[in-house]
Amino acid sequence: MPTSATPSTRAARLQQLRDAMRREGIDALIVPSSDPHLSEYLPAHWKGREWLSGFTGSVGTFIATADFAGVWTDNRYWTQAETELEGSGIALMKIPSGNSLQHIDWLAETLQPRQTVAVDARVLGLATARALQAALEARGIGLRTDIDLLDAFWHERPGLPPDAVIEHAPPYATINRTGKLAAVRAAMAALGATHHFISTLDDVAWLFNLRGADVTYNPVFLAHALIGPQGATVFVGESKIGPELRQRLMADGVEVATYGDAAPTLSSLGAGTVLLIDPRRVTAGMREAVGPGATVIESINPSTLAKSRKDEVEAAHVRATMEQDGAALCEFFAWLEAQLGDPARAPLTELAIDERITAARARRPGFVSPSFGTIAGFNANGAIIHYRATAPSHAVIEGDGLLLIDSGGQYLGGTTDITRVVPVGTITAAHRRDFTLVLKGLIALSAAQFPRGVRSPLLDAIARAPIWSAGIDYGHGTGHGVGFFLNVHEGPQSISPSTMPEPHTAMEAGMITSIEPGIYRPGRWGIRIENLVLNRHAGTTEFGDFLRFETLTLCPIDTRCLDRALLRADELAWINDYHGVVRARLAPHVAGDAARWLEERTREF
Amino acid sequence: MPTSATPSTRAARLQQLRDAMRREGIDALIVPSSDPHLSEYLPAHWKGREWLSGFTGSVGTFIATADFAGVWTDNRYWTQAETELEGSGIALMKIPSGNSLQHIDWLAETLQPRQTVAVDARVLGLATARALQAALEARGIGLRTDIDLLDAFWHERPGLPPDAVIEHAPPYATINRTGKLAAVRAAMAALGATHHFISTLDDVAWLFNLRGADVTYNPVFLAHALIGPQGATVFVGESKIGPELRQRLMADGVEVATYGDAAPTLSSLGAGTVLLIDPRRVTAGMREAVGPGATVIESINPSTLAKSRKDEVEAAHVRATMEQDGAALCEFFAWLEAQLGDPARAPLTELAIDERITAARARRPGFVSPSFGTIAGFNANGAIIHYRATAPSHAVIEGDGLLLIDSGGQYLGGTTDITRVVPVGTITAAHRRDFTLVLKGLIALSAAQFPRGVRSPLLDAIARAPIWSAGIDYGHGTGHGVGFFLNVHEGPQSISPSTMPEPHTAMEAGMITSIEPGIYRPGRWGIRIENLVLNRHAGTTEFGDFLRFETLTLCPIDTRCLDRALLRADELAWINDYHGVVRARLAPHVAGDAARWLEERTREF
Repeated sequence: MPTSATPSTRAARLQQLRDAMRREGIDALIVPSSDPHLSEYLPAHWKGREWLSGFTGSVGTFIATADFAGVWTDNRYWTQAETELEGSGIALMKIPSGNSLQHIDWLAETLQPRQTVAVDARVLGLATARALQAALEARGIGLRTDIDLLDAFWHERPGLPPDAVIEHAPPYATINRTGKLAAVRAAMAALGATHHFISTLDDVAWLFNLRGADVTYNPVFLAHALIGPQGATVFVGESKIGPELRQRLMADGVEVATYGDAAPTLSSLGAGTVLLIDPRRVTAGMREAVGPGATVIESINPSTLAKSRKDEVEAAHVRATMEQDGAALCEFFAWLEAQLGDPARAPLTELAIDERITAARARRPGFVSPSFGTIAGFNANGAIIHYRATAPSHAVIEGDGLLLIDSGGQYLGGTTDITRVVPVGTITAAHRRDFTLVLKGLIALSAAQFPRGVRSPLLDAIARAPIWSAGIDYGHGTGHGVGFFLNVHEGPQSISPSTMPEPHTAMEAGMITSIEPGIYRPGRWGIRIENLVLNRHAGTTEFGDFLRFETLTLCPIDTRCLDRALLRADELAWINDYHGVVRARLAPHVAGDAARWLEERTREF
Repeated sequence: MPTSATPSTRAARLQQLRDAMRREGIDALIVPSSDPHLSEYLPAHWKGREWLSGFTGSVGTFIATADFAGVWTDNRYWTQAETELEGSGIALMKIPSGNSLQHIDWLAETLQPRQTVAVDARVLGLATARALQAALEARGIGLRTDIDLLDAFWHERPGLPPDAVIEHAPPYATINRTGKLAAVRAAMAALGATHHFISTLDDVAWLFNLRGADVTYNPVFLAHALIGPQGATVFVGESKIGPELRQRLMADGVEVATYGDAAPTLSSLGAGTVLLIDPRRVTAGMREAVGPGATVIESINPSTLAKSRKDEVEAAHVRATMEQDGAALCEFFAWLEAQLGDPARAPLTELAIDERITAARARRPGFVSPSFGTIAGFNANGAIIHYRATAPSHAVIEGDGLLLIDSGGQYLGGTTDITRVVPVGTITAAHRRDFTLVLKGLIALSAAQFPRGVRSPLLDAIARAPIWSAGIDYGHGTGHGVGFFLNVHEGPQSISPSTMPEPHTAMEAGMITSIEPGIYRPGRWGIRIENLVLNRHAGTTEFGDFLRFETLTLCPIDTRCLDRALLRADELAWINDYHGVVRARLAPHVAGDAARWLEERTREF
């Protein structure tokens, strides 16, 4: 059997891809950032888009035709993509914020009727597949989804991660898996479903009170699950679940099957089966695998809704975790400020920020890992929304300006995510104006009250309005849901203009969401201020139930960056109230320099 | 041939309907509020839902099964529907604000797999048909769209209106029809279309600079249109277009064909035709009529976008029209206030409001008709959002409380729509608080600046936030687009939580939109304050183009209803600035009592 070497350059890979496309009669190939679980962070096995294009950002879609290749990505990644794609001949296709389907428009406009687009159904969401199908069909263009062109020549494609699955146990697991399964089955029954298939990793981890380490930063493991009227099956790589855990699962009516058995099991579902799937949370490939005897019904995964609504005990764990996280941040910021104030310091780099902040968190009880890659961007790097300092490319923090630090931790008692901006040297009135506008946006939304059930994307403009007033906008959503010792980005709520405000995006009590407006001036500086907030019941009136936000994040917001003249009295009061809470809650957990720093940075402004 | 009498009661009609359903094997029949043009206000010929159910509200969907009949409508119509459906055995199905597809969910949940739903494709929007199809298919339920069950036994069904079509002429028509057709053809070419089919009446009226009187309040006429590479055809009832106008149309390359020829013409489109249709603005029936040779592509009607962006000359006409409309309102309100202040007055009814306000407008140049049915609701009636006082049922305005008046005019130089609330007798602190909160919402949005292209539904929360803060919400959108001597409700922009913020909802310069927050306390009072605003370019920054609103409506907002303690300094300044503009712009157009009233009601607050 002939063997061919893996092409060592992007050009050679692209050539092999085009050869394969020609052989198969494919005019355009889409390689999305996706896997069979529609994950945000991909195991290496599914990083085909990165392998082909060299673009390492977490969101981007690669498309090749016979005479064009490009990567579509939004403005969080433009600077990074420009650098990584340089000289490759692969075009950067800039997506305006909020239009994640722009590449579909491009295909519809560029291809001719009767040409064919291909994409692998095994990594394509069912809802996305339908949108793609409809858009192409509206232009008379064909779609093939039954083929993975890369496999034939991606010889060094990484395998699947072998790490062990562990149990998410009490006290942090507040409901046991039989209780969660009973709730999901009740939701299934209400929809008339006998079976329910789940592919999203955080749903599987949440439902079975299991955690893993297959995906960087997210404590999840590769698995699918099928819930039946009595039993349930988890499809997971062999040897990832040890014999003891397997027995405990068995005792709860949960069987373990091999990862590859998921699709065949769907195929074998018999007549009389009514299978519930979530078209946003299973792939087109899994949908196609369902046998003809089964009736398929569609609705959001009941676990996605349940998981987003933290109960009172989980909320109490998160509050305690925020105290530990905030205390770690006091230690870190006290160290940072001492460094910045020391004219004789050794060169301080963005990389050192990541090391120090993670080390401070690691000393705290319950810490597991960072919840995402720390973003520490000084001046121009702060304007790159998903900037990541690397050993070969990072800045030394010297001179004057603003340092943006976005970081978070996975703890057994919750997931944190916080952004603060600190002044370095002397800052200007322009820095202060931007910082104050961002804080006004944060306050406007943090202080808002709104009806229970309001569709979360509709809240976005409340944070944006004070920033728009100054002729400024930011190219990312205002807030994302956050898991409980799970994904730092979770749904179904999303305070973002690019999320359609459909019914499943409704705000409900117990949800944890970020509020993180920003201002980014390319080449100059970036400012973002981010807190996590909890949806709390605010009262019931003749107009229904209302919710308000409890700010969970505990860490000073640097008032040295504020322009007092731009703040209204109610905004000033909000800042001082917040700092009063931060001081009171964190003081018991810090000592020495950290305690002095906390005292100083929470002084009445 | 046997004849059968039209059933005289709803019960008999329903029985005939169910007999027909049984004969055809239909398990559920949908009768929407719709016509072949997807109009908001229906000619009597298509008021089948009203004829069957007795519910006369402008929005509602009737569904019958073998053992159930109901009308789905939103909270604007609940009080009215309760009254009108009483004793009919037809259930009122309350739709929460913002869920116009709830009846589809009901069908999906109520029917069994393999049952059949029917709806007449000739009055069903193509996009709606697809949503319905997908929802039913997801539950294994069938859909038939090829049948009109009513026709067989609705013997007294009204015919089509015979009124003449007139020309929309300069100076009010600022672009001639050949210019408009050229612009539409350019948009068609950009999409690769050779032909374009239009069914929406305001699009047809706008594109050909024609107006009609087939639909109450909207100066439109029943017609479809087909635009080809050279010529265009208007499909319209015979004898509605006189010989002279027909000749002028011919001279501009526009042919007139009979109304019924539209579908057959679509069927006869030959190979090589690329037909552009807007799935939100043509029926499923028309889509199905397209011949198999033609390729169909889908996009928003180019005329819908162009029509929404008023040019500078149109904006100038609207400003002049607003001065006339505002002057008419000064005369009306001066009369009203004199009446209310006269203890010896004859009984003053809600009906008299409608007569007087329309009479005041009718004395102004360019007035054509009201732009919708005047809403004059005193106290509890003001809380009924789409209240209409009628001869058999209306209130006498006496005692204390609030009188809400929502009215508008069609003028040759533009369309107006305004709501004001005035105090009657002594009002309370609770009245003042609600009124002030509504005004805060109006000001927050009126004063906002936002990026050009922002999706209009996302602006809704800016007006709602001050009202939400008090645990209050309102069950309608904050704003709708307004035509130029055309429909008082037009798209594509819509400042409403129930509109999906899709790309075509983007805000662009020249659009005219209402801002109309409200508070409704059932059984007590209703408050709404409504102005029309124009999207104006506000400047360009490194973040792009920004827009701001110019308030077009000129009429005092009654400061006697305000609670000064709830207003911030910037809000107070907005009110006084607005009243300064109203006074300066209206004073030249009023005299006597009206001038004195204007002076008094625009005094510095």
